[in-house]
Amino acid sequence: MTAAGAEVRAIGVADGRVRVAIENVAPAVDGGRFAIKRVMGDAVVVEADCFTDGHDIVACQLLSRRAADAPWLATTMTPLGNDRWRASFVVDALGEWQYTVRAWVDPFLSWRHDFARRIEADDLRIAALSGAALIEQAAQRAAPAGEGELLHGWSNELAQAANDARGAAAGVLRRIGLDEARAAIAMRHPDLRHALTADAVYRVTVERERARCSAWYEFFPRSASGDVTRHGTFADCEAWLPYVQRMGFDVLYFPPIHPIGRARRKGRNNALDAAAGDVGSPWAVGAAEGGHDAILSDLGTLDDLHRLIRRAAEHGLELALDIALQCAPDHPWLNAHPAWFRKRADGSVQYAENPPKKYQDIYPLDFETEDWRAMWLALAGVFEYWAGHGVRIFRVDNPHTKAFAFWEWVIARLRASWPDAIFLCEAFTRPRVMHRLAKLGFSQSYTYFTWRNSKHELTQYFTELGRAPGREYFRPNAWPNTPDILPAALQFGGRPMFMARVALAATLCANFGIYGPAFELLEHAALREGGEEYLDSEKFELRAWDRERADSLAGFIALLNRLRRENPALQSDAGLRFLDIDNEQMIAYAKATADLTNIVVCVVNLDPHHVQSGWLTLDAAALGLAGEQSYQMADAISGAHFLWHGERNFVSLDPRRSPVHVMRMRRHLKREHDFDYFA
Amino acid sequence: MTAAGAEVRAIGVADGRVRVAIENVAPAVDGGRFAIKRVMGDAVVVEADCFTDGHDIVACQLLSRRAADAPWLATTMTPLGNDRWRASFVVDALGEWQYTVRAWVDPFLSWRHDFARRIEADDLRIAALSGAALIEQAAQRAAPAGEGELLHGWSNELAQAANDARGAAAGVLRRIGLDEARAAIAMRHPDLRHALTADAVYRVTVERERARCSAWYEFFPRSASGDVTRHGTFADCEAWLPYVQRMGFDVLYFPPIHPIGRARRKGRNNALDAAAGDVGSPWAVGAAEGGHDAILSDLGTLDDLHRLIRRAAEHGLELALDIALQCAPDHPWLNAHPAWFRKRADGSVQYAENPPKKYQDIYPLDFETEDWRAMWLALAGVFEYWAGHGVRIFRVDNPHTKAFAFWEWVIARLRASWPDAIFLCEAFTRPRVMHRLAKLGFSQSYTYFTWRNSKHELTQYFTELGRAPGREYFRPNAWPNTPDILPAALQFGGRPMFMARVALAATLCANFGIYGPAFELLEHAALREGGEEYLDSEKFELRAWDRERADSLAGFIALLNRLRRENPALQSDAGLRFLDIDNEQMIAYAKATADLTNIVVCVVNLDPHHVQSGWLTLDAAALGLAGEQSYQMADAISGAHFLWHGERNFVSLDPRRSPVHVMRMRRHLKREHDFDYFA
Repeated sequence: MTAAGAEVRAIGVADGRVRVAIENVAPAVDGGRFAIKRVMGDAVVVEADCFTDGHDIVACQLLSRRAADAPWLATTMTPLGNDRWRASFVVDALGEWQYTVRAWVDPFLSWRHDFARRIEADDLRIAALSGAALIEQAAQRAAPAGEGELLHGWSNELAQAANDARGAAAGVLRRIGLDEARAAIAMRHPDLRHALTADAVYRVTVERERARCSAWYEFFPRSASGDVTRHGTFADCEAWLPYVQRMGFDVLYFPPIHPIGRARRKGRNNALDAAAGDVGSPWAVGAAEGGHDAILSDLGTLDDLHRLIRRAAEHGLELALDIALQCAPDHPWLNAHPAWFRKRADGSVQYAENPPKKYQDIYPLDFETEDWRAMWLALAGVFEYWAGHGVRIFRVDNPHTKAFAFWEWVIARLRASWPDAIFLCEAFTRPRVMHRLAKLGFSQSYTYFTWRNSKHELTQYFTELGRAPGREYFRPNAWPNTPDILPAALQFGGRPMFMARVALAATLCANFGIYGPAFELLEHAALREGGEEYLDSEKFELRAWDRERADSLAGFIALLNRLRRENPALQSDAGLRFLDIDNEQMIAYAKATADLTNIVVCVVNLDPHHVQSGWLTLDAAALGLAGEQSYQMADAISGAHFLWHGERNFVSLDPRRSPVHVMRMRRHLKREHDFDYFA
Repeated sequence: MTAAGAEVRAIGVADGRVRVAIENVAPAVDGGRFAIKRVMGDAVVVEADCFTDGHDIVACQLLSRRAADAPWLATTMTPLGNDRWRASFVVDALGEWQYTVRAWVDPFLSWRHDFARRIEADDLRIAALSGAALIEQAAQRAAPAGEGELLHGWSNELAQAANDARGAAAGVLRRIGLDEARAAIAMRHPDLRHALTADAVYRVTVERERARCSAWYEFFPRSASGDVTRHGTFADCEAWLPYVQRMGFDVLYFPPIHPIGRARRKGRNNALDAAAGDVGSPWAVGAAEGGHDAILSDLGTLDDLHRLIRRAAEHGLELALDIALQCAPDHPWLNAHPAWFRKRADGSVQYAENPPKKYQDIYPLDFETEDWRAMWLALAGVFEYWAGHGVRIFRVDNPHTKAFAFWEWVIARLRASWPDAIFLCEAFTRPRVMHRLAKLGFSQSYTYFTWRNSKHELTQYFTELGRAPGREYFRPNAWPNTPDILPAALQFGGRPMFMARVALAATLCANFGIYGPAFELLEHAALREGGEEYLDSEKFELRAWDRERADSLAGFIALLNRLRRENPALQSDAGLRFLDIDNEQMIAYAKATADLTNIVVCVVNLDPHHVQSGWLTLDAAALGLAGEQSYQMADAISGAHFLWHGERNFVSLDPRRSPVHVMRMRRHLKREHDFDYFA
């Protein structure tokens, strides 16, 4: 059984003495293939299974760094039991962070563990000598002065006591050997010769707070003049800023602002042919005067845009632009880069289609072109151009019809220059595709919320969104309407349904948005029965909106946004928990901060026509409520304060008054009988 | 926005035209780091999410091969909806197989999908020309003769019809373009230029059927003579073969058969010092006359072993040897390879210990030795030696105290020469370690079954074992007792508890074993109160067993093993489903084959002292039972046939008669009133 040299070399294992295993590092998306997402100041809590054979003691560290070229910072991990370990690090800079886990079988800790359990004097003496040798090794690893000297002294002291003509009492040996202060110093100089680092380096994309929590107001600047005969301008938009600010939004989002194609321009209500003077769809990007880096002259100039961005900021609003990477037939790229467009067999350019439907005013880019590299750079250039002009939030139109690899590349490229850039993914498509786009780097994603109406649908969908690993990379942004989608519920549910839907969006999701003023002015007429398109949509014509209308929901929306600002629980998607309520027409949920200092309970009557009532059950343990304690529920919508007792309480909502409660839980009541009434 | 050459090169994406994504390939263990396990003839069902941007049609293939150097076989995957795809391949040879998934955006399928939905004549004509071009490309990819020629003809036919002075009717174009037979041929020559193969190559370890289903009988050959004054021999063991065969076992497993250390030999009942004539523990391997490749002369010679292996095979029994990689103080390796053992500070060899416990008759190998390569080869040599002498089943003692990397390496090495080798992992240790060892390649693993007694414990534990990904690599082997473990339940539960425990093991687990004859002869005296060691254990002395004893459970065990042979449902761990029964002292479960042609329902009374009864609920949908249908349950234990109706039925078990039902479900009764009685 002797081993020939060749056989020894053929073992093919680099170092068989690495005895530790690392498994199940979390969080991780697809084994580290994609980054998790966090915002500035977050603690990234990392766990892993680290263990070895036998009974030796394992030590492990979380390694983290600010960038691929920054030095690793090591944080000692704490055992949670069952070989699971945890540590965290705080991300206090924008950009891409990295983390991984390192573990090793620690001879010093193993020795210390055993030494503490030894009983016989002879045993202790021999073990003390082993310990002295290990401590001396630690001393060698430390700098010669300072800690090295201290450890060297400790090693000598322990060895001398052990060798002291067998005179040292067991208690003395134990006291010296188990010295906690000096052990802590030795542990700062571990023996890493057989340490293992996890296979993958995991990544974190760190964005600013607004990536996690934002309230979007979508607005067509073309309608800013208040006069359907005069095209709105950026200057006209300035007059809207106080109104949008009063409603509490923080992102003002414009559909594309570029020249609009004239060839095959669509008319009002999506008519195939435009009439004279029809303004066309802003998503038909490009005309003779310019493409994605030009501004439609009717809206104003680049200087006007700069001024609007400044004025918006003064109103607490950040401008978001819509990037729609497609071309109208007269976009300059058609001539400059014919290779970027697919040709039909008759030599004509392939327009967008989904047979038998045709979108002849739109030419898609061909992501299988031979010239893909140049095209990618040009498309990146579109974002770069507007970022260079101060835009930091991009709503991306139809990203699901462009190559995945492009998005991963372009978002990483843009973040390298503008780590504060935020990307909202407009993809109402297949679930895997929506998730993939989020993995590729989009900060936020449109969701199916728009079509989730029943209690079952909403509960199921938001429970799914809250699950790992999706919650690590997919930040939902809930929209009750968009210029493309007037859902059936809003067509027929009346004012209570508008209230319910916007309240659900604003409280279920830390990111939400509305397309206004169509939303707050209760616009609900559809172009066609059974369809979801708006009648007289701004997509194809100018509209004049009366923002002072008495029935406007602007005040209600302002209240919702105020509640979002006042309650940290509503500023994160973590901490959502659906509550049992014994009425199928009512949905209830709590949102809570991790420390339970802020708990908001929302109840929504999904029936816009009738009063609905039910018994709601709180999860007392999860919300930190002790048994039958009383607590106050302050409903910001009605202004009422309810005194609740224990887990089960009665709620009733009349949709004609308000279909929602948004109640903050207030505990530690001093004089609970002050609140002994029920709305 | 023009791209400079340097910028173009800096894109860092190999080919941006690869538009498809592959995610969530399953089964997979740790992203493909470890192999899944299957047995000969299994179909490996593989699923993956494959999708692309936009509306183009994706095609995907499962790629599989018999070994790393074999050619890949491509199997078309079928869509399951929601972008999930599935295909399978059959593993019909032992060894390591590989698989992965390849996907691409298919221009021909995308064209065909659109073409079928086109309506306008002009549209159809232009699209037909595009299709003809795609078909011609497929023709070029095919061999020029045969399919290539056929496709070329098809392309011409379609192009001519499209160009035919615009005369061809839409129906004609559609008929030619959508020709199914020729499309199937074109699809055999797909355009793979932009295909993507999943990042990982996934592995399957294919073993023989016995790796999945086996019944082990552990036996000390030292006690084979029937006379405590005469050491048993391999020749004596031959007389036991018919007995073990009658009980229905298929693996006869011996504790280590090597010379036993004399230094520090343990006496009877684990006494620190052996008396003269004490035989010592077989796990103290090695003495002056030899180590792991020698046979204890009291047992016989190598020739005797060969003869026993042959005779066992004639009785349907395969011999398993116990490999305990540790050394008695007088093992030859102590002198030959002192570097393989750790030294204490006083220069003595480090014995096994877990302070304050000491095992001074055992020297562990030091897996952190500088000489680890030579040691690994020597340890591999132990297995190789016995494999060379016809042993193919190895029960490995305490693998959890040896380095993980060693197991992965040695098992792969041994399988390369002996793909029919089976390895049973004896590790009663921490869950992560047990799972890791299974991932590293052990065919079967000891479990916590030995200590899982209550309904809750058993249900929870076996449910966990059945979950992905554990079920892909961890094959449990359930033991009610071992020479080391006489669990409390057997000490105090009497005969009904022995029956219940072995029935649970034999029916919950496709692999199970007992340590006999201690088990079937109801040995239940412990060395110490509160301990789990047998009194007068064969580990330290010879025993004489009376295998003809009237109270032996041999007949009951034979019945269980017969049922395992007769019911395919009991031969696999898949298809286990716990059933609701409204009595905490009763546990019930069904095991079913995938096609539901064999369904076994087991009910066990866990209370050894009292009759227990309850209403059992079957999951009608899962077991393919229609509504209130009647069916027969044939209990092989009592011989009774019950007529059951619908989902809920009554069961009652008297532990003095039998604490278990093992009932085969028989449907499609012709004359159901024949069975209208109850036990």
